[in-house]
Amino acid sequence: MTVLPPPAPEWAVVQWFNTPDPLTLQALRGRAVALLSFQMLCPGCVASALPQAARLHALFPRERLAVVGLHTVFEHHEAMTPAALRAFLHEYRIPFPVGVDRHDGASPLPRTMRAYAMRGTPTWTLIDREGRLRAQHFGEIDDLHLGAEVAALTLGADLRAPRARGDAPGCADGACAAAADG
Amino acid sequence: MTVLPPPAPEWAVVQWFNTPDPLTLQALRGRAVALLSFQMLCPGCVASALPQAARLHALFPRERLAVVGLHTVFEHHEAMTPAALRAFLHEYRIPFPVGVDRHDGASPLPRTMRAYAMRGTPTWTLIDREGRLRAQHFGEIDDLHLGAEVAALTLGADLRAPRARGDAPGCADGACAAAADG
Amino acid sequence: MTVLPPPAPEWAVVQWFNTPDPLTLQALRGRAVALLSFQMLCPGCVASALPQAARLHALFPRERLAVVGLHTVFEHHEAMTPAALRAFLHEYRIPFPVGVDRHDGASPLPRTMRAYAMRGTPTWTLIDREGRLRAQHFGEIDDLHLGAEVAALTLGADLRAPRARGDAPGCADGACAAAADG
Amino acid sequence: MTVLPPPAPEWAVVQWFNTPDPLTLQALRGRAVALLSFQMLCPGCVASALPQAARLHALFPRERLAVVGLHTVFEHHEAMTPAALRAFLHEYRIPFPVGVDRHDGASPLPRTMRAYAMRGTPTWTLIDREGRLRAQHFGEIDDLHLGAEVAALTLGADLRAPRARGDAPGCADGACAAAADG
Repeated sequence: MTVLPPPAPEWAVVQWFNTPDPLTLQALRGRAVALLSFQMLCPGCVASALPQAARLHALFPRERLAVVGLHTVFEHHEAMTPAALRAFLHEYRIPFPVGVDRHDGASPLPRTMRAYAMRGTPTWTLIDREGRLRAQHFGEIDDLHLGAEVAALTLGADLRAPRARGDAPGCADGACAAAADG
Repeated sequence: MTVLPPPAPEWAVVQWFNTPDPLTLQALRGRAVALLSFQMLCPGCVASALPQAARLHALFPRERLAVVGLHTVFEHHEAMTPAALRAFLHEYRIPFPVGVDRHDGASPLPRTMRAYAMRGTPTWTLIDREGRLRAQHFGEIDDLHLGAEVAALTLGADLRAPRARGDAPGCADGACAAAADG
Repeated sequence: MTVLPPPAPEWAVVQWFNTPDPLTLQALRGRAVALLSFQMLCPGCVASALPQAARLHALFPRERLAVVGLHTVFEHHEAMTPAALRAFLHEYRIPFPVGVDRHDGASPLPRTMRAYAMRGTPTWTLIDREGRLRAQHFGEIDDLHLGAEVAALTLGADLRAPRARGDAPGCADGACAAAADG
Repeated sequence: MTVLPPPAPEWAVVQWFNTPDPLTLQALRGRAVALLSFQMLCPGCVASALPQAARLHALFPRERLAVVGLHTVFEHHEAMTPAALRAFLHEYRIPFPVGVDRHDGASPLPRTMRAYAMRGTPTWTLIDREGRLRAQHFGEIDDLHLGAEVAALTLGADLRAPRARGDAPGCADGACAAAADG
């Protein structure tokens, strides 16, 4: 028996940058999606994850992969406003679409962040061509690993299944295991 | 009509390190092969390609991918002897099998290097599970790109075909194009 | 005849962080001062100059050198408020005192930035133990060079004078020359 | 009472590269000397210390500082011959003079390495303008620190004395303390 991964929840975004039209998961069906959740004042996001996302955006053709940023502010709300984000995206030359995750009164954590049960920033979420949630990774992930996972995603495959029963000594981070029960 | 890539020539190796038995392409059939040709006194090999090969070796399970080094000495022959290579592999903690490419009297370039028409070091050669030569890359290649290519190789797919008709702005190096006519 | 370098203008600061009391140049007399002007949304400041300032702060004893940050906002004023700076300094673990340069109605450039004729961010300003302006450097400066200049400053010496008549091939940036006519 | 640092022992070198004439400490009197002991198959030397020595060589004027390499082979003697070193220096574009430390029958460690009581490679030895041994540092040292120490050396000063009674939190490595008893 094979259990399919769950569908990725739709995003709750109040404002988009770097795209003429709002993006929806529904409209991206047929393409793999690499979603990077970040905060503009998160050092690991700025030094590592956002440049990595820009490299990913440059490497794969648009019709195979959509790289999308999500500004999931859960602290320092007064400093990380949409106006501040706009300046940040300009100064750092971020080339891919970025949405602002929606807050409601219920929590300091925004809604999409809660719907995906993200633990912090940066978090990578990999969504397959059918809109299913394939992997989620909190913290840094090296380029070799990310390139391999995303390539498999764009091919409709999953690298992690064989690895689960295998001997991948380099797969030291927790993300793979977390998604393996999908 | 589809033209299959050519079979990869068998290796001509005089001595192996880091493996109890000599390796042959024939015996690796069924697994993808990432072959790194290097010289121990080539700065780009030492600083970039060999650590990258070690990361690749750590990331993928052995039964899916064989990472193999090939010492293709074409200059400073007196300095880069097998004895010197042995010390080098020990000091740099190279974890994967490495063969010494065979010289004959015909050329300062060793035989496998000539059979594969390599232009220098480092050179990556990607060979699929059926032993066909899928790609060759001279010089540095970034981790994201290499991870993606190798993942596709282990899945029996080829990332480059769609890219050839596509718009991959990050695929700036020549290796993709060079192999596309295979 | 020797022409002394000019006195460094006093700072115009509206708010200080990471110090119980406001800092003045006058009060720092007797110690060398390395002043780093930056903006929190300037990528070169965040990736390179601010970590370098933290290293400088850690290397030299406090009684010999004061490392001071100056937030000289000349663009994106709505994004780089003192409240945003406070969050930034916290997230990036900046350990040295930082002042906010004062704006008046006359210019988008703040007052200290104008008084020192700074061209942008990051800018390093080196001030000697007598409060004289010894060097100013716009853009990146490598650690070896900065360590050498600051060490000389703390010793009451000036490395650049001999270099002016000499053959320092590594001193490729403009800052040295600019200060040599002081 | 002040105890002067001891004179640095003269070097025992069998062969020089990158210099028309052999170098002696005696002939370098009047200039500060930064001596880097290395082995061509020592990964830390190749990745970090040798590029750092090249930067140091580029930064300071020749008449103030002599950067000198010393090939102190204490292992893998068959691999690190003078002929291999020649190829290495060429491939890595080492721009400063390099001597080969002399072996006698008494030890696998060469003579200068023993005379200076070096613990391994890389080792930096700083010698002042009067030929006295001011500091010795085994392992990596960051650029900011090295730049500061060498600048003081060229000025006839010593940064470490005030630090000994001070509060230099960044001076975490052992080199300073080791030389303080000089």
